[in-house]
Amino acid sequence: MSVTGHLSDIAAIGRDATSGGYRRLAWTDADLALREWFIGQASGLGLDVETDRNGNLWAWWGDASAGDAVVTGSHLDSVPDGGNYDGPLGVVSAFAAVAELKRRGVQPRRPLAVACFTDEEGGRFGVACIGSRLAAGVLTPDKARALRDVDGITMDEALRRAGRDPEALRAEPERLARIGAFVELHVEQGRGLIDLGAPIAVGTAILPHGRWRVDIAGQPNHAGTTLIADRRDPMMGLAMLIESARREAAERDSIAHAARATVGKVRCTPNAVNAIPAEVTGWLDARAQDEATLDAMLEAIGRDLLDLPGLHVQIAMESRTPAQRFDPSLSTALATMLGGAPLLATGAGHDAGVLAEVGVPTAMLFVRNPTGISHSPEEHAEDADCEAGGVALAYVLAELLTADTLPR
Amino acid sequence: MSVTGHLSDIAAIGRDATSGGYRRLAWTDADLALREWFIGQASGLGLDVETDRNGNLWAWWGDASAGDAVVTGSHLDSVPDGGNYDGPLGVVSAFAAVAELKRRGVQPRRPLAVACFTDEEGGRFGVACIGSRLAAGVLTPDKARALRDVDGITMDEALRRAGRDPEALRAEPERLARIGAFVELHVEQGRGLIDLGAPIAVGTAILPHGRWRVDIAGQPNHAGTTLIADRRDPMMGLAMLIESARREAAERDSIAHAARATVGKVRCTPNAVNAIPAEVTGWLDARAQDEATLDAMLEAIGRDLLDLPGLHVQIAMESRTPAQRFDPSLSTALATMLGGAPLLATGAGHDAGVLAEVGVPTAMLFVRNPTGISHSPEEHAEDADCEAGGVALAYVLAELLTADTLPR
Repeated sequence: MSVTGHLSDIAAIGRDATSGGYRRLAWTDADLALREWFIGQASGLGLDVETDRNGNLWAWWGDASAGDAVVTGSHLDSVPDGGNYDGPLGVVSAFAAVAELKRRGVQPRRPLAVACFTDEEGGRFGVACIGSRLAAGVLTPDKARALRDVDGITMDEALRRAGRDPEALRAEPERLARIGAFVELHVEQGRGLIDLGAPIAVGTAILPHGRWRVDIAGQPNHAGTTLIADRRDPMMGLAMLIESARREAAERDSIAHAARATVGKVRCTPNAVNAIPAEVTGWLDARAQDEATLDAMLEAIGRDLLDLPGLHVQIAMESRTPAQRFDPSLSTALATMLGGAPLLATGAGHDAGVLAEVGVPTAMLFVRNPTGISHSPEEHAEDADCEAGGVALAYVLAELLTADTLPR
Repeated sequence: MSVTGHLSDIAAIGRDATSGGYRRLAWTDADLALREWFIGQASGLGLDVETDRNGNLWAWWGDASAGDAVVTGSHLDSVPDGGNYDGPLGVVSAFAAVAELKRRGVQPRRPLAVACFTDEEGGRFGVACIGSRLAAGVLTPDKARALRDVDGITMDEALRRAGRDPEALRAEPERLARIGAFVELHVEQGRGLIDLGAPIAVGTAILPHGRWRVDIAGQPNHAGTTLIADRRDPMMGLAMLIESARREAAERDSIAHAARATVGKVRCTPNAVNAIPAEVTGWLDARAQDEATLDAMLEAIGRDLLDLPGLHVQIAMESRTPAQRFDPSLSTALATMLGGAPLLATGAGHDAGVLAEVGVPTAMLFVRNPTGISHSPEEHAEDADCEAGGVALAYVLAELLTADTLPR
């Protein structure tokens, strides 16, 4: 087993020399290089690779059409300035596990695939899990093709430039129906496993979460000549959004009960030093333990913003995902196979959550993150924990491939 | 006299169809088109046009080398999404006034030039009044050439692309020494003339002002999984900067005593919806009645920022300009010529202020702004006030050109 060896193979791809982080946005050169690497790995293991209509990669061991397939994998794209673990750890662990099973001479009773989903992070077009959402039919091809990146390039255009046919995008229920169990291994993105003192946990659910765009319009004017009392400065609305989000989340967040609200992206127009802006937009990422907490938090933030004198505030939901619960039978079976591994919910979205939403039996394995830091160049996992993750994945895949029936 | 007719001639150049504002940034196609227009206007009036080492345009009536010249004009570039008056009103009024003097058969006793200074707004490279600062020797050619626009293009490269030689940049004290009086007409950028109930005022001084870059570094992390209590979110520093700037300026600002502080430009890295940022930068534009008020305001804002737990804040001064007083003899003479026009200080920077700093006798004429709005697509001046400005300018130019000596 060499999970970390495989991680090193791709450590140079898409790395920004200044930040030390990764910029592997969908359909960029870095993403295309990682896809080539995926195909090379799969071929080396004798797997049959197909790229589906939505750009997701599948490397098959056995007959892809047989059904009841055991699928594992994750994604290879990153947020801007992300780490090398979020996504890739699940893919390299899958290849390492398949290599191990082949070496051991395991005789599968059903097909296996290593999957790599397209644009999980939403780092380019603003919507997360695009590959799995398209396959699941929860994002329509028309809406996807019209998404734009920060340079104004549509996904339609980006696909064409990468040699893909945007007209091919389509929901693939028949493909998803052939999956008997999907197990995604992922580095943990919080401090849950530190507190539990364990290297591996089995995921139970993803917190309900969403993204809101808050457009704040004021009165553009000269920074030097406009009396403070006469200003309608939209930047004041941004300050209120940042502080309200922090306060409302802090009141509700604890180790026992989750509530998170973040303003991680802003846009200012015209963004000139000597001009009171015309408009400022802040994006709000909000997540909570349950729908009621999320709703209450959003309502409180919205109330603060609607009170601002002289500003016009519009809040638009860009996406909202209800709580996604992984398959309880599969998750329990995995925890048992792993000798009573702890169970853990997460605030991060995953392709496994999207597939769970449309009825695919899914489970997740989390690998300990020694700092809890993720979506950052400093994201890290200890080598020993990564190898332990690979061993655990190989073990549960062997069990699932050779069992009489899959857990139901 | 048709000041507004000339303004209409250029109304389509550099106009953004969406915002309705102007994007006439230095050395862009829009700026080059306006330079062509300037040369055409000057030629039509029989003036000799020269472009100096620093890219400033001079259209001469009479012998440029004679000295004691009367110079008028302003600039043609704009802030991003600015209006059609800030800058162009001074240039078109100058051409209209020269046309009027020629029609009347005025016989000048000294040379006159219509000047157009390069990159007054600093909208492209972040430093205002680049053309006049270079000429005055208060900005060095090396520093200017190394300035970068938002796309990373240096001024050196921008000049080359526009067919200019960046090596030509140089202070021109001998050129400035030949100016006997510089009169810049400009739309007012505040509400002073509304309160005074007058269409025209004579400028007295420009408030001390400057620009500071505030870099706020935190700990990049995952927006969904990082407990609120564990965050070191630089966006909290931006909120503090915005609110502190507003509060500290509001406490000191009134119609009688000026204090302004504005955050008009922000940058967030990596600017991803689902990531707590690594770093946020806010630019602070601050101006005040006097140096002591400006210092006290900056100190108070700095104190608020240095208190933020878990964040690393660095404040760098990008520019600072002391109070610039126009020539009292020239200003008084102009006010008298105009039948006792009111006197007015301004919070906005101008090339006339830069020239005053290095001893050029300068004065300004302000034209009433009916809303006080500037640096905005909504910037406006009434046609009648624009024509009154042109008439006033023609009148004072005729007096200055034919007087025995210039006011001292």
